Amino acid sequence: MDRNIELGFANIDLERRERTGVAEVIYGAGKSADQITEIVRQMYEHGEKHVLITRVEEEKAEKVAGMLNEVDIKSNVYKEARIVVAGGNMPADGIGMIAVVTGGTSDIPVAEEAARTAEFLGNEVVRVYDVGVAGLHRLLSKVDIIREASVVIAIAGMEGALASVVGGLVSAPVIAVPTSIGYGAGFGGISALLSMLNSCASGVSVVNIDNGFGAGYQASLINHVGIRHEFT
Amino acid sequence: MDRNIELGFANIDLERRERTGVAEVIYGAGKSADQITEIVRQMYEHGEKHVLITRVEEEKAEKVAGMLNEVDIKSNVYKEARIVVAGGNMPADGIGMIAVVTGGTSDIPVAEEAARTAEFLGNEVVRVYDVGVAGLHRLLSKVDIIREASVVIAIAGMEGALASVVGGLVSAPVIAVPTSIGYGAGFGGISALLSMLNSCASGVSVVNIDNGFGAGYQASLINHVGIRHEFT
Amino acid sequence: MDRNIELGFANIDLERRERTGVAEVIYGAGKSADQITEIVRQMYEHGEKHVLITRVEEEKAEKVAGMLNEVDIKSNVYKEARIVVAGGNMPADGIGMIAVVTGGTSDIPVAEEAARTAEFLGNEVVRVYDVGVAGLHRLLSKVDIIREASVVIAIAGMEGALASVVGGLVSAPVIAVPTSIGYGAGFGGISALLSMLNSCASGVSVVNIDNGFGAGYQASLINHVGIRHEFT
Amino acid sequence: MDRNIELGFANIDLERRERTGVAEVIYGAGKSADQITEIVRQMYEHGEKHVLITRVEEEKAEKVAGMLNEVDIKSNVYKEARIVVAGGNMPADGIGMIAVVTGGTSDIPVAEEAARTAEFLGNEVVRVYDVGVAGLHRLLSKVDIIREASVVIAIAGMEGALASVVGGLVSAPVIAVPTSIGYGAGFGGISALLSMLNSCASGVSVVNIDNGFGAGYQASLINHVGIRHEFT
Amino acid sequence: MDRNIELGFANIDLERRERTGVAEVIYGAGKSADQITEIVRQMYEHGEKHVLITRVEEEKAEKVAGMLNEVDIKSNVYKEARIVVAGGNMPADGIGMIAVVTGGTSDIPVAEEAARTAEFLGNEVVRVYDVGVAGLHRLLSKVDIIREASVVIAIAGMEGALASVVGGLVSAPVIAVPTSIGYGAGFGGISALLSMLNSCASGVSVVNIDNGFGAGYQASLINHVGIRHEFT
Amino acid sequence: MDRNIELGFANIDLERRERTGVAEVIYGAGKSADQITEIVRQMYEHGEKHVLITRVEEEKAEKVAGMLNEVDIKSNVYKEARIVVAGGNMPADGIGMIAVVTGGTSDIPVAEEAARTAEFLGNEVVRVYDVGVAGLHRLLSKVDIIREASVVIAIAGMEGALASVVGGLVSAPVIAVPTSIGYGAGFGGISALLSMLNSCASGVSVVNIDNGFGAGYQASLINHVGIRHEFT
Amino acid sequence: MDRNIELGFANIDLERRERTGVAEVIYGAGKSADQITEIVRQMYEHGEKHVLITRVEEEKAEKVAGMLNEVDIKSNVYKEARIVVAGGNMPADGIGMIAVVTGGTSDIPVAEEAARTAEFLGNEVVRVYDVGVAGLHRLLSKVDIIREASVVIAIAGMEGALASVVGGLVSAPVIAVPTSIGYGAGFGGISALLSMLNSCASGVSVVNIDNGFGAGYQASLINHVGIRHEFT
Amino acid sequence: MDRNIELGFANIDLERRERTGVAEVIYGAGKSADQITEIVRQMYEHGEKHVLITRVEEEKAEKVAGMLNEVDIKSNVYKEARIVVAGGNMPADGIGMIAVVTGGTSDIPVAEEAARTAEFLGNEVVRVYDVGVAGLHRLLSKVDIIREASVVIAIAGMEGALASVVGGLVSAPVIAVPTSIGYGAGFGGISALLSMLNSCASGVSVVNIDNGFGAGYQASLINHVGIRHEFT
Repeated sequence: MDRNIELGFANIDLERRERTGVAEVIYGAGKSADQITEIVRQMYEHGEKHVLITRVEEEKAEKVAGMLNEVDIKSNVYKEARIVVAGGNMPADGIGMIAVVTGGTSDIPVAEEAARTAEFLGNEVVRVYDVGVAGLHRLLSKVDIIREASVVIAIAGMEGALASVVGGLVSAPVIAVPTSIGYGAGFGGISALLSMLNSCASGVSVVNIDNGFGAGYQASLINHVGIRHEFT
Repeated sequence: MDRNIELGFANIDLERRERTGVAEVIYGAGKSADQITEIVRQMYEHGEKHVLITRVEEEKAEKVAGMLNEVDIKSNVYKEARIVVAGGNMPADGIGMIAVVTGGTSDIPVAEEAARTAEFLGNEVVRVYDVGVAGLHRLLSKVDIIREASVVIAIAGMEGALASVVGGLVSAPVIAVPTSIGYGAGFGGISALLSMLNSCASGVSVVNIDNGFGAGYQASLINHVGIRHEFT
Repeated sequence: MDRNIELGFANIDLERRERTGVAEVIYGAGKSADQITEIVRQMYEHGEKHVLITRVEEEKAEKVAGMLNEVDIKSNVYKEARIVVAGGNMPADGIGMIAVVTGGTSDIPVAEEAARTAEFLGNEVVRVYDVGVAGLHRLLSKVDIIREASVVIAIAGMEGALASVVGGLVSAPVIAVPTSIGYGAGFGGISALLSMLNSCASGVSVVNIDNGFGAGYQASLINHVGIRHEFT
Repeated sequence: MDRNIELGFANIDLERRERTGVAEVIYGAGKSADQITEIVRQMYEHGEKHVLITRVEEEKAEKVAGMLNEVDIKSNVYKEARIVVAGGNMPADGIGMIAVVTGGTSDIPVAEEAARTAEFLGNEVVRVYDVGVAGLHRLLSKVDIIREASVVIAIAGMEGALASVVGGLVSAPVIAVPTSIGYGAGFGGISALLSMLNSCASGVSVVNIDNGFGAGYQASLINHVGIRHEFT
Repeated sequence: MDRNIELGFANIDLERRERTGVAEVIYGAGKSADQITEIVRQMYEHGEKHVLITRVEEEKAEKVAGMLNEVDIKSNVYKEARIVVAGGNMPADGIGMIAVVTGGTSDIPVAEEAARTAEFLGNEVVRVYDVGVAGLHRLLSKVDIIREASVVIAIAGMEGALASVVGGLVSAPVIAVPTSIGYGAGFGGISALLSMLNSCASGVSVVNIDNGFGAGYQASLINHVGIRHEFT
Repeated sequence: MDRNIELGFANIDLERRERTGVAEVIYGAGKSADQITEIVRQMYEHGEKHVLITRVEEEKAEKVAGMLNEVDIKSNVYKEARIVVAGGNMPADGIGMIAVVTGGTSDIPVAEEAARTAEFLGNEVVRVYDVGVAGLHRLLSKVDIIREASVVIAIAGMEGALASVVGGLVSAPVIAVPTSIGYGAGFGGISALLSMLNSCASGVSVVNIDNGFGAGYQASLINHVGIRHEFT
Repeated sequence: MDRNIELGFANIDLERRERTGVAEVIYGAGKSADQITEIVRQMYEHGEKHVLITRVEEEKAEKVAGMLNEVDIKSNVYKEARIVVAGGNMPADGIGMIAVVTGGTSDIPVAEEAARTAEFLGNEVVRVYDVGVAGLHRLLSKVDIIREASVVIAIAGMEGALASVVGGLVSAPVIAVPTSIGYGAGFGGISALLSMLNSCASGVSVVNIDNGFGAGYQASLINHVGIRHEFT
Repeated sequence: MDRNIELGFANIDLERRERTGVAEVIYGAGKSADQITEIVRQMYEHGEKHVLITRVEEEKAEKVAGMLNEVDIKSNVYKEARIVVAGGNMPADGIGMIAVVTGGTSDIPVAEEAARTAEFLGNEVVRVYDVGVAGLHRLLSKVDIIREASVVIAIAGMEGALASVVGGLVSAPVIAVPTSIGYGAGFGGISALLSMLNSCASGVSVVNIDNGFGAGYQASLINHVGIRHEFT
């Protein structure tokens, strides 16, 4: 607890980190490059060597990476995912593989946020992008790959039908992510969100609009069911 | 115009009937069996021999049929469709065939309203029911039949994904009908309605929730494009 | 596929059953006791020995159980869950245990639907009911039990805060179920639904309002990750 | 399929193109001028000579046209419609003519998107703009022209009453497009959308808010019913 | 003020009555026949001889009329309008005539509430019912009558387009009343309400859904502008 | 009609102008200063000497005024109202006076749009600004002035309670205008809009959010009831 | 904690009761008369002598009172408030008095729930009913009484303007309760709720629609600020 | 009243100030630095020595402070709270202390608005920031401090669960403030707002989204119940 008080300006829940056995996550939106760097630096001092920073736009991400480099912390910038990873990913020790599937190319930033989060948390990820249901043969040509996954993340905007179709094709749990892609009666993702909540396929649960991080995190927990468990 | 005034209590637009060359339609909800029978009887006197009555629940429908029989007007009751047809259907003279496709069995009443309306207006109809996208192999096994249609009516509740998947599989225009089937965040058909309006497939347009009649009517107009045209 | 055609009036997806290795589920709402019994009977003839029937109110459930008994099919009625199980549950072979947690006593019917579904699909379930966040000490006194679960189902109406608090206390994936319990600005579950989608805790995904079955099914898939996998 | 993989960054569904017999469409929003040009160039190499690019603002459109010119592909920029057509329109071979009708002058960009799309897809189009129902004599003075069309596209913002009035005046199918024109309780097109879905006129179906392309595409399918059909 | 206290159970604002110079109105919903009768009786004792009671269903209305008769107060029951008038209407002394126009026959109960209210408050009313915009020739055949009115009340459900069309045809102020007639995306009158608020015609203002009384009252105030004024 | 075609780019409904006997109005939003000036100039040529141009922001308004001056048309710019009047107001010949009342100072731009519109259309206007119901004594101190009006326009944002309170204080018709002033659960004017539609005071009707012009226009029609009437 | 487990079927939070020093509350909706009686009986055994039971309709309330009488527990039934009080109210020891104010007579059941709750919790209550803002003189005639209160509960449906007007008239904190009274665009209390949240008067906070209990409880806490405080 | 007329451009309710005994508040949004300064200056001339100005962004705040300095009025700028205080705070004379609690760091600007408002109005404030329910141990570690408060302000965005958890932990009244922090289905604070209105904890009332000032003001009224009372 003391360290939280020391840091003062960030919500770093160390107790939870230790309990869950996963690495640390910083929500970068609304924090300056200076603040982010300082939080990471203090974590390093306390022995935390893997840190994921989300929602950092390209320019700030590069700045953070540069400043971390100055204090000898190696980091990777994933600009499409708006993510910086300091100290590399956790070792991949999940039960199986996580498939990240999108309806269109515009959904890719959210998908990358999910994929990079899952990789950081110790999962192998396979990406199957741009297989929206309006061109069903494309999705069907990838169904074998998707069926190999132990968890599927289905990401789509507009009418969000992808989640139902994928949910009907696989026997793994599906985490659905509505995106704000679309216009008019898409209402910034509401149409896709409602579709996914009302999916006629069983085995689909849903996270917030554009919440790639949340989907990647939940998928990682599922892909480690019974593994992390013993360590807590 | 005079006849409209005579009838007094119903919206019978005879001018339009003559112009469009289609038969007459009575919206039965909120009208008594007596009122409906009297309107049909007067239409018969004025030479109108094909009348469709929609939204009549079973008991009222049987009563109307009985009363019409007493004045020597033959009629058929389609109870699942909540429809009575007096004087039989118009001859089937459309360009092609209309396919009526549903996601589930609960959507069938709306589908029957669409199908019976289209048949009444002079169209051949093929029914492909209960082929929701969660069991894609079932839909795919019927795709050849659906592709033969000149117009497709896609009817689904819950997340309404059927319209997008069907829209991607056919090259005919698709009229989508959201149904109020579902619960919770289905919001009485809003989820399906939004899905269909945001369909990622081109060639899909949408009618009101549960509006089987409207879909059958629009599909019939499409299936007679260039045919009726000459007669107006 | 042929069998589906034979049955005619129900959506029985046998192909999927074989692939997923789980038993069969019938959505009982809108089906008569006769229809349900006949579907179960035919399934038995085709070798399917475990059938779950959901959304059957007490009277219909008793009637189904009686009719099944006449054709020598043993069944159990769980009236609070509105569920009938024919042929008993699948053997419990999940990775760990599933905790079903509710905020109030009014949420119990949804919780029982989730719990009975999970038990049917081969999971051990622990019930922790009536531990809403307004009386935090009650929830905290049960935290050790909840932390033992490999998956947690958090069920709450009103403001749905339970999902966030539970999500922060455990390292297992949490499936949140908003219920329609509440009044006024609860809007039939919308308030709880939005709360759960916006949870500040990571590792929470959401199903439709009152969808206990969906939560139990998803939790079972998660609790069998990597197990069923090998059999598909 | 291979070509899709080659292109990598665009959703080009060649299988569908071949089946439907229509030319190719690129959704330009979110793609750079470079990306668009490269997609068109590769299509040309594969023998596709008619390409429609939608949602390209003026500056990007001019840039695309210039770059296409450099690789000897002739194109036209329709700036009000935010459309670029490469290789010219398809030959006009529809059953009849498509009328595009708007309520106000502010609806014209959406109308032009519809009209240019329909022309590209092989249809004759007549434009009847600025005939909103508040000045009924203006609409009535054009009714003969509109009645000649085999399909009518009715485009309006604010209260969207145009669709109902036009629907009552013609016997052709009407595709209604709500626009986001208006303010306050217009809610960015929701008022017009609801009006059109609830139209008291039969024969009206609706596409998404501001979706001129979708209306033009659907109208073209309707205007080719039974024609394209033989070729698929 | 004292009398209000005496009566105890009704909101009778005598001060306002005296100031506005109009007769008294009782909102009958939620009051028993006994309560209504007692209020009217006490009003009579205090010299108030014209009382309008709204929202009284047929059975209660007849009961009130019977009880009033016993205390020698003459009253009329208008069952379609759900109105009872005790002591007859005020003398018709308005500037001109009020036209009450409806889109369909289902809107008539709301229209009658408006018409009877206006008649009670001293206005001549002309009824033009069932002239919805889908059959424009019917509305146009009545336009001369409507143009003679000094105020127009336009009443419609579904898409509510009537208000805009009428607003464009007349130069009198139009009070628009959305009705809850319709289904699905009509949302109990919201579609019509939004249409009317967004009317492209100038000179239209709107009252609450199904508020026939409010429209009749407002129209009466307008039809007495400058007349009552002198008396206050 | 011919002149409309000549002008080409504006919705100038001359037939209506002649019928209603009021001057001309141009909706300036989305039109350039050049377009507005040209429309006004042509109107002048056709004998129309009073033109109101609404929704013109200050810079464009000044530009229009300058250009009109060059062609010898005198105009006034009312920048708070975002209005330009060419050729001066119509003579004030209404029945009485129109009171424009606002809840706060932020509502003044909408109020000025209403007031200037009413003045242009031939009405005397009294302004009573910043008398919101939270400081009731301020409103009450102005009640005598407001009661003198033949029509009252009540303008408020936030909770819009002003309309109900004013409606209860006067016997003239009240036109309520919700404004988008407020934040959070004000939802851009929805809160005020709903308040006004549900007003517990009789004699209140409502126009669109921020629609000062519509209120001024409607109030002018009311203030000329029975006057203009004879001329149509 | 043990006692909670014993009781089994009710959420009785004894720890909180002891800490807050207030008596016990049972939410009666969804509990049978038997269950309620048994909970009260056990509370009595554990020394709890004041119990409030809310949301019990008349018939059940009488049944509970009868059964309590049999086990020698005296109780009062307040049928308009849908409340039963066992063991009498707590002694009135608040700082001042609580005023409960309503807009109409239809709001009285909610008001009585608030008033009875506050009285039970040890407060003096003054009722000022039916003083809606459309008849401002009535409210103003009671303003002296209301100003004497240390807390004011303002209860209104429809447009909910009462909260703002009262908020502007007093210097005590105001707890606003929207009610579901109204129709059409009242949306079951949403209009009043939004009004109250957007109140232009400072010092107003809001509870859920129809939540009389919540308002009474909160008002009691406020009226005991600094008193109960010492005892916790 | 006269002074209000003199000032002309601001809503300064001096009568209320005198009655409530609190100092003056200016809502700074939409007012220029010049206007604000002039209002303060005139207040000073009339003897008002404590003025709070809210919703002034940093640059304007500094400008106001500079201009006040020139006329010898001392002021403090609290930039995170977007508040300027002229003449210092009122003496702290409340019953107890007010605790301001937030879920995250992003809620701090709203919290500071609440805290500075409460301090200005004569209250001691304790800040407990960033104790969201996902990290319950952090909140629990502060529970003793929070329980000492006589009023608690609970501020949270996203799912707003903090209000319920805090409400269950304390016996003081809780004023809940939803913030617009969040994204997607947070809908700009609606999710948090609904959560708080539906709180399962008693003793929670709610103000508008982001309305820190309103919460601070209401809390101050509560913290002075029975104190100010004697002076009114």
